[in-house]
This record gives sequence, C-alpha cells and structure tokens, in this order.
Amino acid sequence: MLEKVSQVVLLKDFYGPLLTAKQQDVLHMHYEDDWSLSEIASNMNTTRQAVYDLVKRAEGILQEYEDKLGLVTKFQLTRRNLDELRIILAGPEVDNPRLVQAVSLIDEIAELL
Amino acid sequence: MLEKVSQVVLLKDFYGPLLTAKQQDVLHMHYEDDWSLSEIASNMNTTRQAVYDLVKRAEGILQEYEDKLGLVTKFQLTRRNLDELRIILAGPEVDNPRLVQAVSLIDEIAELL
Repeated sequence: MLEKVSQVVLLKDFYGPLLTAKQQDVLHMHYEDDWSLSEIASNMNTTRQAVYDLVKRAEGILQEYEDKLGLVTKFQLTRRNLDELRIILAGPEVDNPRLVQAVSLIDEIAELL
Repeated sequence: MLEKVSQVVLLKDFYGPLLTAKQQDVLHMHYEDDWSLSEIASNMNTTRQAVYDLVKRAEGILQEYEDKLGLVTKFQLTRRNLDELRIILAGPEVDNPRLVQAVSLIDEIAELL
C-alpha cells in the first residue's frame, strides 16, 4: 500500500497540473493527507462510490500520461545517476574547491528534477 | 524563424506523444523535413488553409502543455548545469579515474533528459 501511495504521489508531482482542480484535491486528500474515501465523501457532500470513481479515474489519467511521456521513470533513473555521481565525487579530496562547486551544481540539478 | 522552428521541435520532442498521429506527422513534415504548407496540403489532398489550421492547433496544444509542466524550460536549465559540471570536472586531473567515471555518468544523465 505504501508503495502504491508513493507511486501515485510521484505521478501527481509530475502530471498533477494536467488534472482538474477537483481531481487534484481528492488525490491530495486521500494520498497526502490520508483521508479515507468516506471522509472525503462526507466532506464533499457526495457518496463514497463517487469519490472512489473520481480517484480511480484520476489515477488512470496520470498513468496514461506516464505511459506516453515516462517522466517518473526518467526522474528515478536520473536521480539514481545523480546520487552515484555525488558518491564518486565525495572522497579523499572532498574539500577541493572544484569538487565542492561540482557537488553544489549536482544539488541544483537534483532540485530541478 | 530558425528560433521558432527549434522551439517547436523541442516542444514536440517533449510533448509529441500527447498529440494525434496526424498532428505529429504534419509538424514533422513542416518543421523537421522542411515541407511548405502547400506541399503538405497537396500530399494530404487537402487545402493549405486546413494544414495551416492543423499546424497552429498542434503548436497551441504543445504550448499549453509547456505552460502547465514546463519540461522544456527545465530541460534547458538542467542541460546548462550539466555542461557547466562537465567544464568544472575537465581540467588538470582529467585522467583521474574517478573524474572519468563522473563524466561518463554526466553523459548518461544528459542522454536521459
């Protein structure tokens, strides 16, 4: 379940702006604020089934974008490479100013992902 | 004009899979194979105006995705940082095996962008 949650949150990080505000809100409540479907339904004055359908539909849309653009997969590979790069550059001459500058650039790149 | 062409090609690189096959084909013919609108129209057995509308509509869709996700802007910033990183790591100890490994990782990251 935890893996499912982080996968949806990751997809939402990348493709969230392509969803409607309502779809974004419901995913946020359910996966980030940990509300149950019934709690969301009661808050939105609708049925648990309607919320369930909304969540499933939004998840489906996010997955369709990922199938077409693959941004989450690319992000994970790039982050792994950046972590490896950081490990390679840490080491004996870690206070070499060039390496310090390099590591700070790696951090900037990681921020942009 | 050249700048316009490369901007559309870049947008298409990122968001092309979200267009219809026809939209992708027409943008490819016009911006990558350098066909005129009239040539495309004659090839597709339609009017120059219809092709023009199709191109403008496809460009608009690409731009809407960029406005929401900003992948092209992120890509350009990341590439600039990677280039800078490569320059910092090139230098006196360029054959240091750690640096060689680091540069090859940078190339892998650039490939993924």
